[in-house]
Amino acid sequence: MTRRRPIRAVVLLSGGLDSTTCLAAAVAAGREVHGLSVDYGQRHRGELRRARALARLLGAASHRVVKVDLSAFGGSALTDAAIAVPKGRSPRAMGHDIPVTYVPARNTVMLSLALAHAEVIGAEEIHVGVNAVDYSGYPDCRPEFIEAMEEAVRLGTKVGVEGHPIRIETPLIDMTKADIIRHGLGLGVPYEMTWSCYEGGAEPCHECDSCRLREAAWESLHMGDPLNVREP
Amino acid sequence: MTRRRPIRAVVLLSGGLDSTTCLAAAVAAGREVHGLSVDYGQRHRGELRRARALARLLGAASHRVVKVDLSAFGGSALTDAAIAVPKGRSPRAMGHDIPVTYVPARNTVMLSLALAHAEVIGAEEIHVGVNAVDYSGYPDCRPEFIEAMEEAVRLGTKVGVEGHPIRIETPLIDMTKADIIRHGLGLGVPYEMTWSCYEGGAEPCHECDSCRLREAAWESLHMGDPLNVREP
Repeated sequence: MTRRRPIRAVVLLSGGLDSTTCLAAAVAAGREVHGLSVDYGQRHRGELRRARALARLLGAASHRVVKVDLSAFGGSALTDAAIAVPKGRSPRAMGHDIPVTYVPARNTVMLSLALAHAEVIGAEEIHVGVNAVDYSGYPDCRPEFIEAMEEAVRLGTKVGVEGHPIRIETPLIDMTKADIIRHGLGLGVPYEMTWSCYEGGAEPCHECDSCRLREAAWESLHMGDPLNVREP
Repeated sequence: MTRRRPIRAVVLLSGGLDSTTCLAAAVAAGREVHGLSVDYGQRHRGELRRARALARLLGAASHRVVKVDLSAFGGSALTDAAIAVPKGRSPRAMGHDIPVTYVPARNTVMLSLALAHAEVIGAEEIHVGVNAVDYSGYPDCRPEFIEAMEEAVRLGTKVGVEGHPIRIETPLIDMTKADIIRHGLGLGVPYEMTWSCYEGGAEPCHECDSCRLREAAWESLHMGDPLNVREP
């Protein structure tokens, strides 16, 4: 009797709430998970340290950080020190326009790097924790973008041409942030270790869109965010 | 009377024969050209130095080198010192299989970086010198891949969502390498400054697929490659 190897998946892991849940879900689904974090010159690089620890803790088979210098282009509050991160917007007001925290082509770049990694290690899947519900106005978090990328991946790769295209899985795409947390809690995700704040501080700023969305989600669950619980 | 600014184009420039011709053609077509070279950990990094000089000489408005460490993934003879560059294949034998010089997801990564740059500087076009005729077996040089990427670019960008998608132009896609050289000679491309060899030597190796394709093209034109002409 031959034993097939498990399906191999590259999971994009920022160390935030969504991608960490995505990684935990892939492990729970029996995937051999290879975490990939992208150091793109973001302010909040502390998330990369957390990503490494989370990948290990959650049972990834490997974890890698790849560097690409998107800050060389500027144009986003997340990579350009000259552009301020917007503060104090209500979650209700987000999503109507594309904010300055949008990093040009970030998900296109990240998916292409995940693809490079997937091709080399022979992974069948790429998992990415984008969600279109609480998507905060980023066009590259929408399902139609993901589908178009999946088609490009099929046509532009050796494995795709050979009839075994790499699939792009977005298990969180229709979930609200509250759904994601509920799902992750069931999987034992240590949310106290995840990081969502766009700023590079030692504590979350509680004012940027990402902090606001995260806090609104925990509030809607009538729970406290474990990241904010400090030993007395 | 208002004067419209010229169409702004990001041109991917490796410093090789195709991309240099592509850049010269974009300048000749009246584009405001912003050259972009990608340092992806290739053996033949001398091409980046040449790219910078060529961009200046051919009239680009700017030129930028962005670093992304694809060598961290390995898997290609162009980035992994442990994989030898194949030597002595005839141009006729190429294109039947995907060679080890294929860099996983290279064009996907490069197009995504060109896209990031294009979004930030407000460019309407990305020009890339891929060609499907002498394509040497790379799936990400085919028109159907480029079309799929263009669709992803339309759906995944702020400008695309707003109805002004960035176009991906592939002016060389149906040209043979001999056609490209003929076209470039008419545009005054200094081919003696371009570099095609996959190896990182001081002189072309004359044995890798890229050298062989280049030499076959000059021979078919009954011309000598000016790169090989040395002062006596």
